Amino acid sequence: MASTQSLFLRDLYTEWLGRMDGMDLPTMRDLFEEWHLATIEPSGVTYEEVDAAGVPAVWADPVDGASDRVLVFTHGGGFVVGSRHSHRKLAGHLAKAVGARALVIDYRRAPEHRFPAQIDDAVTVHGWLLDQGFTPEHIANVGDSAGGNLAVSTPLKLAALGKPLPAAVVALSPWLDMELSGETLDTNDGTDALVKRAVLQGMIDSFLSGPGDATDPFANPLLADYTGFPPVYISVGGHETLLDDARRLAELTEKAEIETVLDVVPEQQHVFHFCAGRAPEADDAIARIAAWLRPKLGLS
Amino acid sequence: MASTQSLFLRDLYTEWLGRMDGMDLPTMRDLFEEWHLATIEPSGVTYEEVDAAGVPAVWADPVDGASDRVLVFTHGGGFVVGSRHSHRKLAGHLAKAVGARALVIDYRRAPEHRFPAQIDDAVTVHGWLLDQGFTPEHIANVGDSAGGNLAVSTPLKLAALGKPLPAAVVALSPWLDMELSGETLDTNDGTDALVKRAVLQGMIDSFLSGPGDATDPFANPLLADYTGFPPVYISVGGHETLLDDARRLAELTEKAEIETVLDVVPEQQHVFHFCAGRAPEADDAIARIAAWLRPKLGLS
Repeated sequence: MASTQSLFLRDLYTEWLGRMDGMDLPTMRDLFEEWHLATIEPSGVTYEEVDAAGVPAVWADPVDGASDRVLVFTHGGGFVVGSRHSHRKLAGHLAKAVGARALVIDYRRAPEHRFPAQIDDAVTVHGWLLDQGFTPEHIANVGDSAGGNLAVSTPLKLAALGKPLPAAVVALSPWLDMELSGETLDTNDGTDALVKRAVLQGMIDSFLSGPGDATDPFANPLLADYTGFPPVYISVGGHETLLDDARRLAELTEKAEIETVLDVVPEQQHVFHFCAGRAPEADDAIARIAAWLRPKLGLS
Repeated sequence: MASTQSLFLRDLYTEWLGRMDGMDLPTMRDLFEEWHLATIEPSGVTYEEVDAAGVPAVWADPVDGASDRVLVFTHGGGFVVGSRHSHRKLAGHLAKAVGARALVIDYRRAPEHRFPAQIDDAVTVHGWLLDQGFTPEHIANVGDSAGGNLAVSTPLKLAALGKPLPAAVVALSPWLDMELSGETLDTNDGTDALVKRAVLQGMIDSFLSGPGDATDPFANPLLADYTGFPPVYISVGGHETLLDDARRLAELTEKAEIETVLDVVPEQQHVFHFCAGRAPEADDAIARIAAWLRPKLGLS
């Protein structure tokens, strides 16, 4: 059974959904800025804002972490809402568990900036990190929801550009399917407190420039070729409408003989990892991710 | 002339005021949670959430700070909005400049909890700190706006209860006058981008239980007796409608022969200190506060 503590997120989503009908974009953004309320401050982590070649970002540095290993964290929010601020604490928990730094980036958001501005910004940040002296094998791409999409699509894009790939990819409750064809969109509609078809369709309308984009593999990584892709860890909640996005990504990477973990945590909500520091399901999931990721980054 | 960087806050307030008309309370609270956007993350500060005898709070600990010196930070927001989250970074900057810890407390807010719940919570936290082994002479009460009121009223209440007083008080753009009788409410109405009579009246209606409370010295510290009060530093912007609140407090404490600094920074907005890390006026004001406060807390 889901822990009482983890119900905080379900209740937060229920409250949000009840207020979201007809809400304007600035108010919606204010609302999702409070995603961080689910996360308890990780102790022993310092922060520093940085301009990453034009992309605003914040470093989360565990006091005893390896300063030459980086988790590039792309935040969720349907490419429309969310920010480095809403995800700072979550990234801090991951960084601390791994013993590396996290860099939470504010890629340009839709609808002001449509696909592929987001992936372009993530590619820019990757190049900036290399310019700063970080090596690709010491970088992992991590993200949740739409940011989980970017954590996957960014290495795909880097590969297409002939650039060096990160050591690993971690996708938390990734949203990948721009055609909304997953069965769990319907079968988990009753258990997912936030991610409804209508919400996703609104995000798609803001993110994509036209219907052709919905089948572009860089927008919809369920249509991509994963040959040569880095190892990938997918963590998702069992109550999610996006559960099938996670499953289908795992099938694709497994078929391409990529090291793949699909970690489905029963009865958990979309990006239940937000409950880090609060709920055992989130803390345990992060501990498993960290145990998997550390050797990928050359950490013992 | 005000720095370009400091205009961020004026522009943020202008945008908020344009959206606030008829706004419901949850949306208003979401909006003011983003106060922190004006503040750049202070580097080298860690955070840890704590239950301070039932009052939710967050420690802000500079990596090299004195762990036995505490700034108790009461956040602003008219007793109605704002939180430990909206003010975490600002408190972190102050803590870092002083070389002490800050404890940002989430006192109960109005209208769910009216005067004197807020001051009761601040008194509770003071007692909790003493129980934790902190000594009164190593504690300062610091707050902005309505939290500046609490930074003043809490020592007044502690004195009335016969409890030991903090070493010093720092009031940033304090809001003290529950009768709205200051001249600058009108003369600075054209320059203050946020704090209008109507906004303050709404806060008063939420905060006070009845008109009698408006002249209670614990709600309206402009009517209090400052005999034996700790040294007080008042920092305020020249463009504020609440400038007269700051001036009148300084007159009262000076008359009571209390060590007093009134630091008026020209052309600055309400709680311009939020621009810490961004604007020189905020950083310089915080540096002056720290230089004054360090010896009060026995720091060299």
